[in-house]
Amino acid sequence: MNQPTHSSLPVDAQMLRDKDALLANYHKTRDISVRMTADLEVEDQVIQTCEDVSPTKWHLAHTTWFFETFILLQFDQSYTPFNDQFEYLFNSYYNAVGPQFYRPERGFLSRPTVTEVHCYRRHVDEHVERCIRQMYEADWLKAAAILETGIHHEQQHQELILTDIKEVLSHHPMHPAPFAGPPKREVQDASDLDWLSFEGGLTSIGRHIGEGEPFAYDNEGPLHQHMLTPFEIACRPITNGEFLGFVADGGYDSPLLWLSDGWAARQNHAWTHPHHWHCQDGEWFQYTLHGLKPLVKEEPVCHISYFEANAYANWCNARLPTEFEWEHASRGYASHDGNFFDCSKDPHTGKVRGPSPTVSAAAPQSLADPFGSVWEWTQSQYAPYPSYVAAQGALGEYNGKFMCNQFVLRGGSCATPYGHVRHTYRNFFPPNARWQFSGLRLARYV
Amino acid sequence: MNQPTHSSLPVDAQMLRDKDALLANYHKTRDISVRMTADLEVEDQVIQTCEDVSPTKWHLAHTTWFFETFILLQFDQSYTPFNDQFEYLFNSYYNAVGPQFYRPERGFLSRPTVTEVHCYRRHVDEHVERCIRQMYEADWLKAAAILETGIHHEQQHQELILTDIKEVLSHHPMHPAPFAGPPKREVQDASDLDWLSFEGGLTSIGRHIGEGEPFAYDNEGPLHQHMLTPFEIACRPITNGEFLGFVADGGYDSPLLWLSDGWAARQNHAWTHPHHWHCQDGEWFQYTLHGLKPLVKEEPVCHISYFEANAYANWCNARLPTEFEWEHASRGYASHDGNFFDCSKDPHTGKVRGPSPTVSAAAPQSLADPFGSVWEWTQSQYAPYPSYVAAQGALGEYNGKFMCNQFVLRGGSCATPYGHVRHTYRNFFPPNARWQFSGLRLARYV
Amino acid sequence: MNQPTHSSLPVDAQMLRDKDALLANYHKTRDISVRMTADLEVEDQVIQTCEDVSPTKWHLAHTTWFFETFILLQFDQSYTPFNDQFEYLFNSYYNAVGPQFYRPERGFLSRPTVTEVHCYRRHVDEHVERCIRQMYEADWLKAAAILETGIHHEQQHQELILTDIKEVLSHHPMHPAPFAGPPKREVQDASDLDWLSFEGGLTSIGRHIGEGEPFAYDNEGPLHQHMLTPFEIACRPITNGEFLGFVADGGYDSPLLWLSDGWAARQNHAWTHPHHWHCQDGEWFQYTLHGLKPLVKEEPVCHISYFEANAYANWCNARLPTEFEWEHASRGYASHDGNFFDCSKDPHTGKVRGPSPTVSAAAPQSLADPFGSVWEWTQSQYAPYPSYVAAQGALGEYNGKFMCNQFVLRGGSCATPYGHVRHTYRNFFPPNARWQFSGLRLARYV
Amino acid sequence: MNQPTHSSLPVDAQMLRDKDALLANYHKTRDISVRMTADLEVEDQVIQTCEDVSPTKWHLAHTTWFFETFILLQFDQSYTPFNDQFEYLFNSYYNAVGPQFYRPERGFLSRPTVTEVHCYRRHVDEHVERCIRQMYEADWLKAAAILETGIHHEQQHQELILTDIKEVLSHHPMHPAPFAGPPKREVQDASDLDWLSFEGGLTSIGRHIGEGEPFAYDNEGPLHQHMLTPFEIACRPITNGEFLGFVADGGYDSPLLWLSDGWAARQNHAWTHPHHWHCQDGEWFQYTLHGLKPLVKEEPVCHISYFEANAYANWCNARLPTEFEWEHASRGYASHDGNFFDCSKDPHTGKVRGPSPTVSAAAPQSLADPFGSVWEWTQSQYAPYPSYVAAQGALGEYNGKFMCNQFVLRGGSCATPYGHVRHTYRNFFPPNARWQFSGLRLARYV
Repeated sequence: MNQPTHSSLPVDAQMLRDKDALLANYHKTRDISVRMTADLEVEDQVIQTCEDVSPTKWHLAHTTWFFETFILLQFDQSYTPFNDQFEYLFNSYYNAVGPQFYRPERGFLSRPTVTEVHCYRRHVDEHVERCIRQMYEADWLKAAAILETGIHHEQQHQELILTDIKEVLSHHPMHPAPFAGPPKREVQDASDLDWLSFEGGLTSIGRHIGEGEPFAYDNEGPLHQHMLTPFEIACRPITNGEFLGFVADGGYDSPLLWLSDGWAARQNHAWTHPHHWHCQDGEWFQYTLHGLKPLVKEEPVCHISYFEANAYANWCNARLPTEFEWEHASRGYASHDGNFFDCSKDPHTGKVRGPSPTVSAAAPQSLADPFGSVWEWTQSQYAPYPSYVAAQGALGEYNGKFMCNQFVLRGGSCATPYGHVRHTYRNFFPPNARWQFSGLRLARYV
Repeated sequence: MNQPTHSSLPVDAQMLRDKDALLANYHKTRDISVRMTADLEVEDQVIQTCEDVSPTKWHLAHTTWFFETFILLQFDQSYTPFNDQFEYLFNSYYNAVGPQFYRPERGFLSRPTVTEVHCYRRHVDEHVERCIRQMYEADWLKAAAILETGIHHEQQHQELILTDIKEVLSHHPMHPAPFAGPPKREVQDASDLDWLSFEGGLTSIGRHIGEGEPFAYDNEGPLHQHMLTPFEIACRPITNGEFLGFVADGGYDSPLLWLSDGWAARQNHAWTHPHHWHCQDGEWFQYTLHGLKPLVKEEPVCHISYFEANAYANWCNARLPTEFEWEHASRGYASHDGNFFDCSKDPHTGKVRGPSPTVSAAAPQSLADPFGSVWEWTQSQYAPYPSYVAAQGALGEYNGKFMCNQFVLRGGSCATPYGHVRHTYRNFFPPNARWQFSGLRLARYV
Repeated sequence: MNQPTHSSLPVDAQMLRDKDALLANYHKTRDISVRMTADLEVEDQVIQTCEDVSPTKWHLAHTTWFFETFILLQFDQSYTPFNDQFEYLFNSYYNAVGPQFYRPERGFLSRPTVTEVHCYRRHVDEHVERCIRQMYEADWLKAAAILETGIHHEQQHQELILTDIKEVLSHHPMHPAPFAGPPKREVQDASDLDWLSFEGGLTSIGRHIGEGEPFAYDNEGPLHQHMLTPFEIACRPITNGEFLGFVADGGYDSPLLWLSDGWAARQNHAWTHPHHWHCQDGEWFQYTLHGLKPLVKEEPVCHISYFEANAYANWCNARLPTEFEWEHASRGYASHDGNFFDCSKDPHTGKVRGPSPTVSAAAPQSLADPFGSVWEWTQSQYAPYPSYVAAQGALGEYNGKFMCNQFVLRGGSCATPYGHVRHTYRNFFPPNARWQFSGLRLARYV
Repeated sequence: MNQPTHSSLPVDAQMLRDKDALLANYHKTRDISVRMTADLEVEDQVIQTCEDVSPTKWHLAHTTWFFETFILLQFDQSYTPFNDQFEYLFNSYYNAVGPQFYRPERGFLSRPTVTEVHCYRRHVDEHVERCIRQMYEADWLKAAAILETGIHHEQQHQELILTDIKEVLSHHPMHPAPFAGPPKREVQDASDLDWLSFEGGLTSIGRHIGEGEPFAYDNEGPLHQHMLTPFEIACRPITNGEFLGFVADGGYDSPLLWLSDGWAARQNHAWTHPHHWHCQDGEWFQYTLHGLKPLVKEEPVCHISYFEANAYANWCNARLPTEFEWEHASRGYASHDGNFFDCSKDPHTGKVRGPSPTVSAAAPQSLADPFGSVWEWTQSQYAPYPSYVAAQGALGEYNGKFMCNQFVLRGGSCATPYGHVRHTYRNFFPPNARWQFSGLRLARYV
């Protein structure tokens, strides 16, 4: 953060500017979490319907706990915790910090109330502001990186707040619509499914991590060479309409299209269509954060597991791209240029709008929507890059310990906060996960 | 209800008086449900920690649904339901009414909110008032009995609200105290454990059910003769102090004291003491609705399963009474004369007081606390009395279909609303249930 | 056993005669266990398909362990166990003896082999013979009662061997037929369903238990008075044909006919007909120990749970009898006079015949088949009789600790060994048990 | 198989020679399966203790079903199945063939008996011999490849027979020893843990698959280039003694050493040491196929999950090799030169010897025991190589559909049949699997 490149200023002045910029980003990010949940009922924010999802108020508290634990308790000797129990209640999985409240019972936590959680947020925000402002350079060099990590961490939880509340409310037979609908837009036909060709050979994957580099998670590095076989990749994600073809053709009843574990999951959970789809009297609907809506065939298919993505690809004699192919193919596209979640309220209703995946028209021989829209499952199991070393201390638990039985997703979704993803960004979920905004883009060998 | 015995008045005038009395009781009971939950946080009222317990707001809505379904939709042709979905959401187990929302997921119901549930209550209360007032005699003869059943039904749920919220909040490591403590009182030593002797022979059990009789549940009848063997019964319930003796003597590690199913339950759940007890640094505490408090040895032991009650009785070479012995022995004691739950607020704090079991000094050769204090497990499995016939229609599902794998408890507890129980009252729970205010009183053969 | 009433002989001579008689019975019973399993494959005898059923070889070893533990190790100082591990492996549930191998994993016990189990049986039989022969009078007075209990215990396991192997083999899609079919017999139409009336009033239930009395289990006593309401009981059990009426009328889809726990069981297990029934192309078959056979409508319905028996009774506006009514009504019928299991081989094939329930023509105003045929579910939950005291020592665990969440069955079945049951005999199983030869007989109030 | 390179003979003569060779291999392999199970009791061969393991008799039948299904029913028009039910009973997971008997209940299959399974084997062997002998060239070209696959398939099941029976018998508290002990040998100290260095760069991975190539599974191809980072690999596997150091240092109580899923598995299953280890009075023992034996510190650690291997590597600041590093490093070592399972009987006892992992002295700067001894977990999740295409037809289900949530193991174990593995051989198991002979070898970046 304290980069020599822009230090024509004296160190102190530069540090002040850096603090200004980072704290502005901090407060902006923190504020988004508050605004995006402002239209939810208190009752909505308490419920946990399965181990994977957490209550909204837990997310709001946990992201706060992150700053309290890693900034305030590290750098402010005079700070006393807002509540002694919160270290235990809101630690997600950091064994280096201490024991954690049992994850499947986060929905049993009657207290703190939503109101108290907002008090906690304001309390920590004030202390973080003061602590950072008063910090000398030696601490600042360390704290700045953690503060930036905390901001990105909060952005990740903003997406989880959306996917989790969607999951929670979807259990309700009345299909509540907590958010206003997306802005009216022309639904356009999806482009033809064109293919882009790549020659293969050695390519650079990932990026340098560490001091003096722009922010990235440790799992995005080190930068290294990877050998690619010639391949083709589809110009856009698969749409709901195309996926309906798979459904209609008996894709969910054809074990030969599925991975063995995938078929077992399909049987155990009686999957017959993507998550959040409903068939009523022969018409297809999709539960969205603005209620139950007719399925839009032109939009990307969403809320599918890796297993369904993989079966779909087998059905059309294609495959999913590797994460390396994806990264190689998307190089040169602007990662902030997509349909990301933006918490600004609808000017007409004053309400926050729920996210919704879209698909754009692809220019000839170029990728449509590589960023935003839907997370794209890759066929790459989540693994460390060569020479990867996890960060020291508790933050080393952030990424590395999950490198097992998960698949990498790339590109970001309509529920990802604006500005959060990069070309090298590696999201990851178990192959049976369906509650994220996850879709697919096809690839094939030449 | 329209009883000839007090009909010196013309029929119409008598009906008006009956309506006045019953509606007054209706509103008083409905009001208690509101007041007793007024100090709970909204968050508290959403949570379900296991299938047995229901969220507070579910209880508040379900008791309302009862009147909407069995009074308004039966007797008011012009009534339209407050919300079409509520028939499904708040039907507990009445198959004759229709399908029911899946019980283990009541805690997933984000909506209606607590505020909306209170609207629903007020809406139904107003319509019940109007409906009853406008009712002609033919309907009134039917409706009065159902209205009275609904009032008693709501009282049962008032006790469940207390036991369920205690269960829910007990999962929280911070031991929240939603209610004010009980009034200060002198803790007195428990009386000696004296025994009262009874000769046996034929005795009358239960009571007449039906028109012209004061209210009772159908399971309390018919009145019939039962043959008793000579027996003795203890003058008071077993205390915490006495139960500590069982704990200290290894009662929880002695399989020979336990029923086979009881030992399996003790092993599966790792029971080592009554529910809601905590041992911290060698000191015993008990979680109460006014927080974690030192265990009072003089108070009746509470929150034990039938299995624990039975093991304790074996440990001291005694047994539990049958429900027939209990009813025979308690005849002559006033059933409204106990430590029942009373929703009146604490005059000093203005807050509702949480219930707490007590024990009184027993007069010589008489029972202390047969009513109120703790529900007393009997050794009688819950079964129909000879010639029992369940009520017609949906209300026939109220009692009869549960006559399997449950044991009868008698006497009422400190969480039972004042005026709710009778000598013939038969409460019932499965033998592993511990979240009720359940204790024990010993018996033995001579 | 050493009863003064037949002691015109000198004590020693009487004891020798008693020993002769009891040992003859011992060897005859032990021999039946061997013969009845002789046609099974070794593979059949290893398998356990659920916690309730045990492998054949486990039964053969456990009944042997009973005599080794309670006779040889008690009365023969010089005896060393056949194998030190067997105390642990073949103890069923006697906590007073010591810990037990985990019941759900009895099917994981590769060793001892079937051959070794038979060695164990012969070893114990020889030592029991010698031990009893050499025993002096003081020991004999104690040992005789235990030996007799052990014989009855082995008879109970003979029935379990049959029901368990039927359950195990029923999981096989090839429907193996380990036993020869029953003797050819004329299938006769079932009698009309006549009713026998009883006046009610006090009746004697159970019997005296203890020294000088013929053998009975402790749960059959004490003899006591019970008050009966006037009732009627059906002259014969319900037949397969009658039960098909219930199936055809949607009985399995009518929750209002079922107990609450029963409906839950029916839903969880997807019951749509009695256990061991199969519908193939619209024809009904029943799996029997002599293979898959067309359902015989005239035979008693069998392999139903208490829940199904109760639902059936509700369907025809009747009920199940109490065990007291059953005992009262069956007094005067010969308990050895039924269709019991007899291990004698088929004279034509030389093979043991598999048991099969039958129904006889009832004489006017008398019960058909109260004993043998099928176990008849009663509505009585299994509970101690007044003043019941379990036996001292480990054998006190035989009956008393199971008095919870079980229902009493009366009368014995076609799989019960000849000579095993009595008027006062109380069999008991949980209400969801279906793998026994259990059926029903209706009762009703007048 | 019908390779141009050795076809100086006329086609027919060459085909006869090829048939001779392949059938000889067929019969030799089939015979080993019989001999290796000859000392097991019938009872041992029936039991399944968890879904992963199958009964011995199921393996013996399934490998036979493979030849019946893919050779006889494909190439012999006149063949009728030995038993119509076997297609269903012994199909493991080939959805293209048809439905499969429910895997977790293979241990419920009483029939066919072990004796009948051996009849089935002989029947199929005779028909395979005849069928192959009578086959014309067109069929032979297809059948030869399938026959060879079937032989390798049977070898895989030979290893599973050993690991499964070890798992089954390990549940027995008497620690049965079905096989004779390994030959007496000098236990030698393990070599120092030296490291071999490799430079990295592009390397060839895998091999050509298909006609004219020596046998390999489809998952070993295609041959392709992979980019390696410079690395070091340990000269030998980790020993029991070294792993004891991890145990003693609290490795099983240090969540920071474990993957997140690994720590969950360790908690759920209460792992505190490798599978099949036992600590008795402070001494360590290991259950082996020749009984419970003192742990030999010099032997490779075995029966550990990927999670344990990974945690161990973290504990010593190293890591597991990728499968590419492993393949690169092991090139040049003879893959038949290891401690493989050999079914020849012990000359002294005439009994088959149970396998046991060993470690050899490593020559300087070379790998000890890359083949045989223990399967070595790699950090590579099991994934398709670039351009991988599964085989057509049912055999396409052999490998590809398992490429999810499994990790690759390399090198073969002491339970792998002699001649079965190759440099390119990819074994795979889920990361929590412990019942295989699986150990680890360390790697690190330079």
